Amino acid sequence: MANHKVTLLPANQTIEVPTGALVAEAIQRAGLEIGQPCGGRCAVFVEGDGARRRSTIRLSADDVDAGFALACQTVIEGDLTVTIPEQERVERRLVTDKTARSIEAPFPYDPSLQGIRAFRLYLAEPSLQDNKDDLARLETALAAAGYPGVEVPLDLYRRMGSVLRQCEWSPWVLLEAQAWNRPQGPARLIDIDADPIEPVAVAIDIGTTTVSAYLVDLTSGEVLGSSAEYNGQIAFGEDVISRIIYASRNGGLAELGLRVRETIAELLGRLHKRTGVDPARIYKATIAGNTTMMHLLLGLPPATIRLAPYIPTVNLPAPILAQQIELGIHPLASVDCLPGVASYVGSDITAGVLACGLSETEELTLFIDIGTNGEIVLGTRDWQVACACSAGPAFEGAGVVHGMRATEGAIEEVWVNTGTFEPTWRVIGGGAPRGICGSGLISLLAELFVTGVVDRGGNVKLDLDTPRVRQGEHGPEYVIAWASEASTGKDIVLTKVDVDNLLRAKAAIYAGFSVLATSVGVRLEDVQQVLVGGSFGKYINVEKAVQIGLLPDLPWDRFKFLGNTAVLGTYYALLSHHERERLQRIARSMTYLELSADNTFYDAFTAALFLPHTEIVRFPSVAGIWEREGGSSLAREPG
Amino acid sequence: MANHKVTLLPANQTIEVPTGALVAEAIQRAGLEIGQPCGGRCAVFVEGDGARRRSTIRLSADDVDAGFALACQTVIEGDLTVTIPEQERVERRLVTDKTARSIEAPFPYDPSLQGIRAFRLYLAEPSLQDNKDDLARLETALAAAGYPGVEVPLDLYRRMGSVLRQCEWSPWVLLEAQAWNRPQGPARLIDIDADPIEPVAVAIDIGTTTVSAYLVDLTSGEVLGSSAEYNGQIAFGEDVISRIIYASRNGGLAELGLRVRETIAELLGRLHKRTGVDPARIYKATIAGNTTMMHLLLGLPPATIRLAPYIPTVNLPAPILAQQIELGIHPLASVDCLPGVASYVGSDITAGVLACGLSETEELTLFIDIGTNGEIVLGTRDWQVACACSAGPAFEGAGVVHGMRATEGAIEEVWVNTGTFEPTWRVIGGGAPRGICGSGLISLLAELFVTGVVDRGGNVKLDLDTPRVRQGEHGPEYVIAWASEASTGKDIVLTKVDVDNLLRAKAAIYAGFSVLATSVGVRLEDVQQVLVGGSFGKYINVEKAVQIGLLPDLPWDRFKFLGNTAVLGTYYALLSHHERERLQRIARSMTYLELSADNTFYDAFTAALFLPHTEIVRFPSVAGIWEREGGSSLAREPG
Repeated sequence: MANHKVTLLPANQTIEVPTGALVAEAIQRAGLEIGQPCGGRCAVFVEGDGARRRSTIRLSADDVDAGFALACQTVIEGDLTVTIPEQERVERRLVTDKTARSIEAPFPYDPSLQGIRAFRLYLAEPSLQDNKDDLARLETALAAAGYPGVEVPLDLYRRMGSVLRQCEWSPWVLLEAQAWNRPQGPARLIDIDADPIEPVAVAIDIGTTTVSAYLVDLTSGEVLGSSAEYNGQIAFGEDVISRIIYASRNGGLAELGLRVRETIAELLGRLHKRTGVDPARIYKATIAGNTTMMHLLLGLPPATIRLAPYIPTVNLPAPILAQQIELGIHPLASVDCLPGVASYVGSDITAGVLACGLSETEELTLFIDIGTNGEIVLGTRDWQVACACSAGPAFEGAGVVHGMRATEGAIEEVWVNTGTFEPTWRVIGGGAPRGICGSGLISLLAELFVTGVVDRGGNVKLDLDTPRVRQGEHGPEYVIAWASEASTGKDIVLTKVDVDNLLRAKAAIYAGFSVLATSVGVRLEDVQQVLVGGSFGKYINVEKAVQIGLLPDLPWDRFKFLGNTAVLGTYYALLSHHERERLQRIARSMTYLELSADNTFYDAFTAALFLPHTEIVRFPSVAGIWEREGGSSLAREPG
Repeated sequence: MANHKVTLLPANQTIEVPTGALVAEAIQRAGLEIGQPCGGRCAVFVEGDGARRRSTIRLSADDVDAGFALACQTVIEGDLTVTIPEQERVERRLVTDKTARSIEAPFPYDPSLQGIRAFRLYLAEPSLQDNKDDLARLETALAAAGYPGVEVPLDLYRRMGSVLRQCEWSPWVLLEAQAWNRPQGPARLIDIDADPIEPVAVAIDIGTTTVSAYLVDLTSGEVLGSSAEYNGQIAFGEDVISRIIYASRNGGLAELGLRVRETIAELLGRLHKRTGVDPARIYKATIAGNTTMMHLLLGLPPATIRLAPYIPTVNLPAPILAQQIELGIHPLASVDCLPGVASYVGSDITAGVLACGLSETEELTLFIDIGTNGEIVLGTRDWQVACACSAGPAFEGAGVVHGMRATEGAIEEVWVNTGTFEPTWRVIGGGAPRGICGSGLISLLAELFVTGVVDRGGNVKLDLDTPRVRQGEHGPEYVIAWASEASTGKDIVLTKVDVDNLLRAKAAIYAGFSVLATSVGVRLEDVQQVLVGGSFGKYINVEKAVQIGLLPDLPWDRFKFLGNTAVLGTYYALLSHHERERLQRIARSMTYLELSADNTFYDAFTAALFLPHTEIVRFPSVAGIWEREGGSSLAREPG
């Protein structure tokens, strides 16, 4: 096999690569980094004739004409010069702490549209002639400040006497002037202090895998800091089903509640260090999460979520006090658990819909949140239908022999050489690989399919001329990394069984799209935008996700990657009662399709169990690549 | 001294007694019992000329003509036949448990006028086609039952799923349809159960010394059982001031709160045994108590109650949940702490005013509650003024060398022979005396005064021809019981210092009456009824209380003894929102006179430091007895 010279600019490094290598591989081997995975960021400028573009769906025709190519989709067949544009710093997908980025709401902040107020009061000092009690004095001052009939909780009775005397009858107070659902009040006093009180709140998204928090200054509406951490419940199961099962064990529910509170405490502790805001002085929390996560947070037995007819205790919980769930913020803070739709479409999705703008657009929009589960919403501002696909945790690395979560040591991106079938990879943290995570699996499966290592039925072609394919202990398998390359000292492989699991997972999600579209009588190709939420979605290589048939085959510019839409929507709902009302309307009006009650789902699922799909016409761009690559398996129609 | 023969009927016993003995003494010596103390129950039928009536103010002129006499006020001067009317069973003043007497409210019971409702609901069963959550299903059924928008607390979310399935979607619910101060609701769900729920509530009066509880069936309005017990806080001080001081010690407030909860738990435990009602199934509590007791129950630091300008944290607390103060009834039960007026006029007094009817009468009424403190209310339905007299605990047995609480072994009533100055007594429990309690002290002081053992200034007349008066270790004293008669093996005495303490206590209370009357421009003799509340008041011998100048000298028929008016008024407020509103109006409209801010109080107090008072004309009936007895000290006007 011939070697070709590739010059990389601006680094001005030259490297030799064999025919069939990808530009991305060449860059990787040169030890350079590009913004991977994708989002269009792997576009490079290519000079020379030795480049064959396997796909360009993420580039405009003008870009292609101007010489741009996608590094991960461009096969090297001759000498080349590649210019890597000034890349933004590569974002690590490892879920760790981040310093506050500039997070902004798409509407101007109006403090009067959220309920929390902090101000100072001036009370009349008592005397023998004026011996009204402390509370009556405080109530009089609050009424004079425009808040008659304020509810004063018992806890504050307990502090009131000493605070009022300490501050010489001029205390600072913080109150909830109105809850979003009680615009007429009455107001509720939350704190009273001799020192000034700053109104600070927190928006939290409790994911099955990751918990994220934004600390919010309610004076400016700004995010003071954000933080994320793995959900401490992971020790008791990776997915919601195993958590539900654990919760039904003796003490399990309490244990899971404790773990998520500990995770939140950890986040708030970090934010405390970084911003100086003591968690005890956080006066409001708005929280989203899937329905199971919300049940576990609230201490509600989730068992019925798992059993037909899949009924949760509550989708639209009333506001509670932080002390009722021992949240570790101010005990009298209001905790607003956002509304969900059904057992498998929770408030992470309704908040996501709010954040992504689906409920305000005229365009036919598909919103996808692929986290540990896959939830899908299709609709416009006038209607929304939603479903949940029990994709299973394959894309989270579970149910795959060398699968792992997206942490240090995980292969997150793979390229397979068209001619040699040798893989190149990128590992989170940069060291030797330990396993392969979700985005790596999508990438690997797509590469194996496009290079013909697996056929459309997902079978590993053992007759290829490479030691990478072999009959393993559990059947046919492809060796991603040899034992000598892996930190575990063992071969890292993808087995036929793994491929089948991945096919089932992607088929479930694609079937979800299909059934939703069918249920409302639209075609998937009519979808005008695909909005991808979830921290997992953020790292998916769309190109490759389309190639395996996980995402519908639509022009690149219809996809938008929004990151954690759940916490973003939660933040919006925290900032504005208008947004909160909108969220309530979304939750109430969204039509939930219970797929297990839908016969068409099984048919759609079965049809999607191939690469990319039984009906290849649904994936014209994939069919195009396949033809150019000359993949033989295309000829073999699945039976 | 001559002896006289007294024949007692219907027992047909004959006994010899010396000249000057009281009929009551004769009965006592014969080992018979009469309804003592008083309340008119010591009236006996006397035949023969040997009876001289020292006082008849508690008998009508017709009764006297018919031959009735008061056993404790009738001196024997010749042979007599005394018929003891069929007495109701003597009530023991020992504060212990009693079986439920028939306690009735003075208004017809209308269950719709209190907030608690219990009934059964029938919910739609869920299916794959109807997958609404449990809460939505419950809310729909509640709305159909006439309760839209019911607040459902988080604790019930936690039970709801299993209860609904256990009862096959037909649960029993108990809710608070409306609080008295929120007639428009919304309703609040308190319990949900597969089994029928009975609406039961409790009315509690927390006295400094005694805690009383009525268990109330809210279906019938009837008292299912009542119970009383010493307040467990007594270990930390007998009066409110010492409790306040203890509360300011580290951990003191929590300890006092714990003790009163333990006392309540003890009462509810007894009522559980007796009625079968588990405390966890008590769904509402209405509680009265003096302001300090309420602060301690609610965990509010009471320090400012004791320091000028004597400002409590709260007089009109908002309703709370039982779990907020760990009350040991259903955690979501509403706890209504009744409203007080000021630091020293608490809800025991406002409830007492409600129960005694002062706020509904046109008659000028004096309401007195002599417990550990003395609170006084003067008024009619149109106006009320109140004050508190820091009488001190002398009438509770404290501050008196052989004083004790009204428990077993306490001398509760004393008669002193006019000629010999020998005492006769009745002891609680019937054994040898251990000390002397409040009613005993009043009785003793009155007897010593009337028989001339002490003069109007409270000086013990050491020149009398009896070994009972002597110079003791602490000055002049009167020996009530010799060491050989006492269970302690020591003489039981009343010293000059004790007398001075008693004089200060009674003077404080009488000064309270005077100042109240003066403040509104009425005369004490215009008072049309004197209503005496408090368990202590129940056992006071009015005759003797008037003789020492503790109570104003009014015709007997103007006095009414009402027992524990605090718990009774609490019971009324529990039964009816109308009564509860009335109570609120009483608390808001009552004028509180802070005596420490009132110069006239000191003058009135000083004037009342004599027996019965500096101005003898205020006590014409006492002056009359004195004249008949020929008491020499009357001639000696106090200087």
